[in-house]
Amino acid sequence: MDVAVLVEAKARAARESATALALLPTRVKNDALLQMAHGLEEEATRILDANRLDLDRARSAGLTRAFIDRLTLSEPRIGDMAAGLRHVAGLPDPVGETVEVWRRPAGFDVARVRVPLGVIGFIYESRPNVTADATGLCIKSGNAVVLRGGSEALESNTAIARVLARAVEKAGLPVDAIQYIDTPDRAAVMRLLTLDRYLDLIIPRGGEEFVRLVTERATVPVLKHDKGLCHVYVDEGADVEMAVAIAVNAKAQRVSVCNAMETLLVHAGIADVFLPAVAARLAQAGVEIRGDARARALVPAMQPATDQDWDTEYLDYVLAIKVVDTFDDAVAHIRRHGSGLAEAIVTSDIRRARRFTQEVDAAAVLVNASTRLVDGSVFGMGAEMGISTSRLHARGPVGVRELTTTKFVVWGDGHLRQ
Amino acid sequence: MDVAVLVEAKARAARESATALALLPTRVKNDALLQMAHGLEEEATRILDANRLDLDRARSAGLTRAFIDRLTLSEPRIGDMAAGLRHVAGLPDPVGETVEVWRRPAGFDVARVRVPLGVIGFIYESRPNVTADATGLCIKSGNAVVLRGGSEALESNTAIARVLARAVEKAGLPVDAIQYIDTPDRAAVMRLLTLDRYLDLIIPRGGEEFVRLVTERATVPVLKHDKGLCHVYVDEGADVEMAVAIAVNAKAQRVSVCNAMETLLVHAGIADVFLPAVAARLAQAGVEIRGDARARALVPAMQPATDQDWDTEYLDYVLAIKVVDTFDDAVAHIRRHGSGLAEAIVTSDIRRARRFTQEVDAAAVLVNASTRLVDGSVFGMGAEMGISTSRLHARGPVGVRELTTTKFVVWGDGHLRQ
Repeated sequence: MDVAVLVEAKARAARESATALALLPTRVKNDALLQMAHGLEEEATRILDANRLDLDRARSAGLTRAFIDRLTLSEPRIGDMAAGLRHVAGLPDPVGETVEVWRRPAGFDVARVRVPLGVIGFIYESRPNVTADATGLCIKSGNAVVLRGGSEALESNTAIARVLARAVEKAGLPVDAIQYIDTPDRAAVMRLLTLDRYLDLIIPRGGEEFVRLVTERATVPVLKHDKGLCHVYVDEGADVEMAVAIAVNAKAQRVSVCNAMETLLVHAGIADVFLPAVAARLAQAGVEIRGDARARALVPAMQPATDQDWDTEYLDYVLAIKVVDTFDDAVAHIRRHGSGLAEAIVTSDIRRARRFTQEVDAAAVLVNASTRLVDGSVFGMGAEMGISTSRLHARGPVGVRELTTTKFVVWGDGHLRQ
Repeated sequence: MDVAVLVEAKARAARESATALALLPTRVKNDALLQMAHGLEEEATRILDANRLDLDRARSAGLTRAFIDRLTLSEPRIGDMAAGLRHVAGLPDPVGETVEVWRRPAGFDVARVRVPLGVIGFIYESRPNVTADATGLCIKSGNAVVLRGGSEALESNTAIARVLARAVEKAGLPVDAIQYIDTPDRAAVMRLLTLDRYLDLIIPRGGEEFVRLVTERATVPVLKHDKGLCHVYVDEGADVEMAVAIAVNAKAQRVSVCNAMETLLVHAGIADVFLPAVAARLAQAGVEIRGDARARALVPAMQPATDQDWDTEYLDYVLAIKVVDTFDDAVAHIRRHGSGLAEAIVTSDIRRARRFTQEVDAAAVLVNASTRLVDGSVFGMGAEMGISTSRLHARGPVGVRELTTTKFVVWGDGHLRQ
């Protein structure tokens, strides 16, 4: 079948299931999530067989060890996917929630009530566990989903999506609510982006360039999940021990994620004490440091940083360090180079803490806390589809509530416009 | 100057003013709004002179009386614009509002705080008063604005925008916060749509086709304000007097607006009583009725409706009427032909009222109330930029709050990711 026709047929099928899905009682959706979890465990062998095909191909193609690790499924990893779905079943249902309600002087009531977005297109990297995680969040929030994972995970994702679709059908949901675009053809993705007749939202996860392409081509609204160039600024007078702990955690707790720190900014007034201490701890954690001239004067072991470093999202055991003269210089650097995801200050000064939260524009700003905390689960919002760097609709972690919209419901008694 | 260069320069200037604008205290923004109001009154003569140039051109071009009426300014209309700005000054400031805040078990606090969107591109029809109304809402919400009104109002809008920019400057705001694209060249609009480096949102007001074009071309996120094909469904057993009053109000109180009713659906069980009554009242109001065969059997004076009528937004003294056999038929008709703006039911049955609010998917659903109530001011949300038919971010009336986004603010005490 022609790719464009295939994609359109899947998107239309998802759309046609959306009305029924939006009206489901919470208990039916939760039952579907439990069935999905059960299905994954029951069909684990079949899913692992499919995964083996992907892995063989990935090894032949000479993909990196880190890539292959993310692609690999195992009994325990499938168990984690099932546990994740059961966790989502236990989350509160955002659909039907009355966000606010008020009575107008004329005597009619206006309510704002949460409803599903409708059909969500989700484009993501080659991590098959994400297929189950994302589908669970969509079903919980009453949305149909059209999935398209990285082509290296095609066999695994197709197998998982099939198990999930069969499970929701068993629970009485439309089987068409879960669609997987099972062709490696990139034209399929391009087609999906313009199906605004059927899709209400596209969430693209991936590199900056890919997200840029999606934004340019899409007529469907997009929630961007792109670059995370995060800073930690260590202010003059900060608690040095706390600053070291936060810097090491923000950089090295996990390096390949969007909320990891990429550049450390240090006030000149604390650099002589703080830099040697943090450099030693970062070296222990295996982090390579690239410093500006003033940082290297204090810790000569650093590599020299170039201008390019201030704009580089390493996603690796590499960190850029810059010494700044003032709070304002730090804020100006972040404004110029930050990607608007997560920015942190370590300070003891309440006034500068408040100024930082107001003057730095990002999805999340943190005072005396690691940028790594910016996460749906850590924030207590349940699981997440990712972290949005868009300003519209949802900014920051995207959980089940962010997959809904609202409608106004007016209750009158013959009320007219005067 | 080249149009593309001109537009880009204005958008960049707006962007550069946005940071300062976002940090303004409420009292300074309110002072700017009062200065804007004062400026309009003080410069009324100059504005009316500019308006006369537009009106002369419109008359030479043979534009309709209704069009020229919307284009016409007068001392009282300028007074209304000033009064509107003073009203916005009195509204609560959405910026800085803490939407929610919670403490995580680990002991850090997570807050969601409202901040301005940044720079808003607003493309609208040839009604010069809208220039002041929209600018007021943007300034109140701490946003810079790039305006582009219908080219027939170019002289009026340029004069108004100049007065407003000078007024905000007097109040200590950046003069660049208010930009008007003062070229009739359509290429200017097309350029604006792809300036996502500088703009955070485009709000296009206009016909369905124009909004469609904007959606296709824009890389900037779009809040659609397009078609309003609204229905009123009169259920079996409804209060006939109430149903007549709501139908007449929804159709004829003002016909040229998106929340006016375009199709009236009537349950077969009430048609014989309701239709003659409503037809008489609509005729008095000067409304032409196009009915299906069953409606015409009861009120022979109706014109016959064709299939095209069910999809036509008349914006005129014309109404289509259809008799349906069941509640489900009414809901199915609305799903198929409605534009998702405002849909109303008139009923005495609580169960069907509840089902209607759940099963009909629109920005606003109303029970025993006129579709004309769907309006920011009537809802008590203050003035509005328009009514969004988008599902993302803001659905329904767009007031000052809808021109903001949120950021997460985390307060910790050395908290790390475990």
